[in-house]
Formats: sequence, structure tokens, C-alpha cells
Amino acid sequence: MTMSQHASGYQILKFDDGDLLSITDQVASEEPLQITVDGTPVAVVMRTLGDDADLVAGFLLTEGLVDSLDDLVRIDLDRAKNHVYVFLAEHVVLDHARLSRNLFSASSCGICGKASIEAIHQHAPPIDSDLTVAAELLLSLPSRLRSAQDVFDYTGGLHAAALVAESGEILILREDVGRHNAIDKVIGWAAGKKIDLSRTIIQVSGRVSFEVMQKALVARIPVVSAISAPSSLAVEFARESGQTLVGFLRPPTFNVYAGPERISRGT
Amino acid sequence: MTMSQHASGYQILKFDDGDLLSITDQVASEEPLQITVDGTPVAVVMRTLGDDADLVAGFLLTEGLVDSLDDLVRIDLDRAKNHVYVFLAEHVVLDHARLSRNLFSASSCGICGKASIEAIHQHAPPIDSDLTVAAELLLSLPSRLRSAQDVFDYTGGLHAAALVAESGEILILREDVGRHNAIDKVIGWAAGKKIDLSRTIIQVSGRVSFEVMQKALVARIPVVSAISAPSSLAVEFARESGQTLVGFLRPPTFNVYAGPERISRGT
Repeated sequence: MTMSQHASGYQILKFDDGDLLSITDQVASEEPLQITVDGTPVAVVMRTLGDDADLVAGFLLTEGLVDSLDDLVRIDLDRAKNHVYVFLAEHVVLDHARLSRNLFSASSCGICGKASIEAIHQHAPPIDSDLTVAAELLLSLPSRLRSAQDVFDYTGGLHAAALVAESGEILILREDVGRHNAIDKVIGWAAGKKIDLSRTIIQVSGRVSFEVMQKALVARIPVVSAISAPSSLAVEFARESGQTLVGFLRPPTFNVYAGPERISRGT
Repeated sequence: MTMSQHASGYQILKFDDGDLLSITDQVASEEPLQITVDGTPVAVVMRTLGDDADLVAGFLLTEGLVDSLDDLVRIDLDRAKNHVYVFLAEHVVLDHARLSRNLFSASSCGICGKASIEAIHQHAPPIDSDLTVAAELLLSLPSRLRSAQDVFDYTGGLHAAALVAESGEILILREDVGRHNAIDKVIGWAAGKKIDLSRTIIQVSGRVSFEVMQKALVARIPVVSAISAPSSLAVEFARESGQTLVGFLRPPTFNVYAGPERISRGT
């Protein structure tokens, strides 16, 4: 994961004080990644280069296409062609119904909408984790993550997601042009390390859509925290799924949209 | 388009000075919209309520599924079921190859990637508009749009897109939880009004991905301007498509990533 993968320099013009000046600007990389599972094309994801195997593992897990990384035998990356070939274990069959339901819901959601919250719960039941998180821990995250982010300050063009342990330790931070990709990279990495996600918090840089809550639920992460606002469906999904949803985390305040029982006021 | 469609109030807890206080917070609405064309399910889009017919028209146009609104005979909305039924004119046949290519590229891109820029150009050739835009006009947009936005200040959860005439007039402004939806709503509205998009600028609130440039190209909008950063593929796509791409529009400065010949320094 080097700077040169995440961003590239472009000669551009900057308008300043009536002049157009030639400068070099760092721009976040975006390239397509075609995902093929056992010969079946599954999706094309627009992503920032780097951590492709984690991205694919996380995507397959959080979209419910596989139940565990044990279902995956091999992930081969053809970097030049931006194509990744996934091979499933012999006993595992790609669920074509689930696949078409996912592809079907094209632009921004995995499985779709209010009416299907129940359907999602059949695959991923509500979360029942007794994790509690101190308000002070949450309030410490924005500044600690800012200093850990390596590309954002240069390009201003990346979403970030971080997995945080109960102790407050930042386990992993990933940045990507796609909000969902940053989350999938974090979850794919953690699943590979066999980390117990039911004792973690996922912190994201932007807004929280329905799909962010869905991915966290499937991964069994009980607490989602964000710098910005959630959508109505994210709030409703979180409340029905036993998830804690924190938004507008802007010290010294934050909002708790769902699952306040996991937030403790002390340190 | 009322406030109550765009956002709803939720009882939440706000952490402040060691206390969790109960407050009412306005949250941007997000609900799925299933799009069915002549009986074939085409996509499910997660969108903010309101302007659904514009959204669907813009989506079908910018994804290249229809060539003109004349191809559409009727758009029926079943509001309760969040389902929209589109009926094509008799001479128009839904291009199933194009459809599957679109659906195929699931999560965030219409048609995908560097290698396919040529394929996109077959459907939507590079733009050759002699429109020029004064730097002063661009610099005036952020504050004028902020005062025109009706929901963002309440919820902090919406993306905005605005279509601006050569004269500087703001023709339309739409806000949505989905960046692409806001663009599709604007383009669908303008196509319905038979506005000559080759003499307009589209201003967006967030980052610029490849797909934003693709949608603008298909709609024949020559200038895309954004408050935040573009991705590398957005820059490359714009340069190969004859589009002007302005980023980091933060008065008194902005960056020109592509097509600087359309920017004039004066007023």
C-alpha cells in the first residue's frame, strides 16, 4: 500500500487571484475491478488501488455471497487487467438466487429496502452483543484517525473506514474513493485475521446509508459511528437490528440514533 | 417537494458535556425505488423521496437505456410500494445487452472503466461545445447554492446537484441521499423541459467519480464543477471526452482538471 497506488499526480490549472496557474495536484486513484467467482461474473467495483484481496473478501462476505472466508479457496488477481478470480471450496455453491438479487439491486443497495429488513434478518439476525463503548473513546476517534490517514489530506477525495477495538486501539484504517469499498477492505482484512467483530466499532468518515448498516450487520459489528449524518432507512434498520448508530461525531458532541444502551457516559 | 418528504424527525440522544439528552433530529429520507421497464426489472435505486419521475427519466437516459424521453410513453408510480413502471414507445425495444452490461456493473459504475471509455464514446461521443464560463460565475455558485438548498442545513445528509445556465441562472437544484440520484433528477427534469444541455454547467456538492462524468457526457453537459475532489478516472475520462472538469471550487480559488479552454478569466 504505497502512496503511488492510492493517488497520482496530474498537471492541472489552479485559478487564483485572476490567474490560471499550472500546478501538480494529487488525485485519488479510481479503477474498475471485475470480480469473477467460479467463472461467473459477479460485479464490477470502482475502487482505489490496493488491498484488492481484502476488498473482494469483504465484498463477498458483506453482500452475503459467502458465509465465511473458509468458503474461499483462492483469490487470484490479474492486476494488469483489473480482474480478480475467486475460487470457492468444493462443497460451496454460489447461490445464484442471492447473486441475482444482489446484482438486481444495482446502484447502491445490497438487498433492498424496508420491506426486506426481515429477509436480511433471516440471513443475518439482529445483533445481541453486550459491548459497551465509553463516550470518551468515541470522542477521541476523529483526531486520532485524522493523524493516521495517509492519503486524504493530499487528495481530499477518499472515504475512510476504521475498525476500532474495545480497548480503543485502531486495528485497521482503509481509504477508498468508494465509501462501501473502504468498509469492505476493513471487514475483509479483519475476517482474514479471525478478529471477533462482535467486540469492535466501525468508524466511517462520511454519511451512513442503509447499506453501511447492512454490511456492518452481516459482519456482526455492533457499533457504527460516523462523522456525518445517517439516512432515515439507516436509522430504522439499526433500530430493528440491535445495532448502535452514532452520527455527527464532532467533539465535544455526538448523536446516538440507535442502540444507546451500548454508550457509557464515563471514560 | 415538501420538507416532510425529504426528511423526517427522529427522537435521538445527543451527547453533550457528559450528558445524553433527548432531542428531535431531522434525518434525510432514504427509501428504495424499484424501476421496471416494460415488465423487466431494471434496477432498485435507494433515493430520497420526491421527484421520482425525473429521477427515473434521468436514470434511464444517463445509463444509456433510452436515447430520448420520446422513447417513454408513460411512467406510473406506485408510491405505497416504491415501485415505478415505465412503458416504452412501441417502436422502442429495451436493449437487453446494454441492460445486462449496466446491471452487471453493480455497485457504482454504469459501464466500466478505462478500457471501456471507447465503448462509451460509441454511444456518447466526446463533447464539442464552444460554451465558455467566466471564473466569476463559478466562484459565485457555492454561496448562491447554499442559500437555495432547503434540506441540507437541517439534515447534513444530502448530496446536491444544480443545473446552471450560461447566464449564471440556477435552473434547478435537487438534493438526494445518493449523489447520482441528485444528478439524475436534475437531468431528467431538464430533458423534460427540452433544455439545451450543451449550454449548461452542472454543479455538484461532493466528489466527482468516473460515473458523474459519464452521466454528464451522455446528457451532453460540457462543464462539471464540484466542491470537492475528482478521482483519477474522472480526470482521465473528462480529458478524453472533451469535458471541462472543475474541482475544489472554494472561493476565491478552484482547480481545472480538464478542458480549461472553456474557462474565461474575466467576468
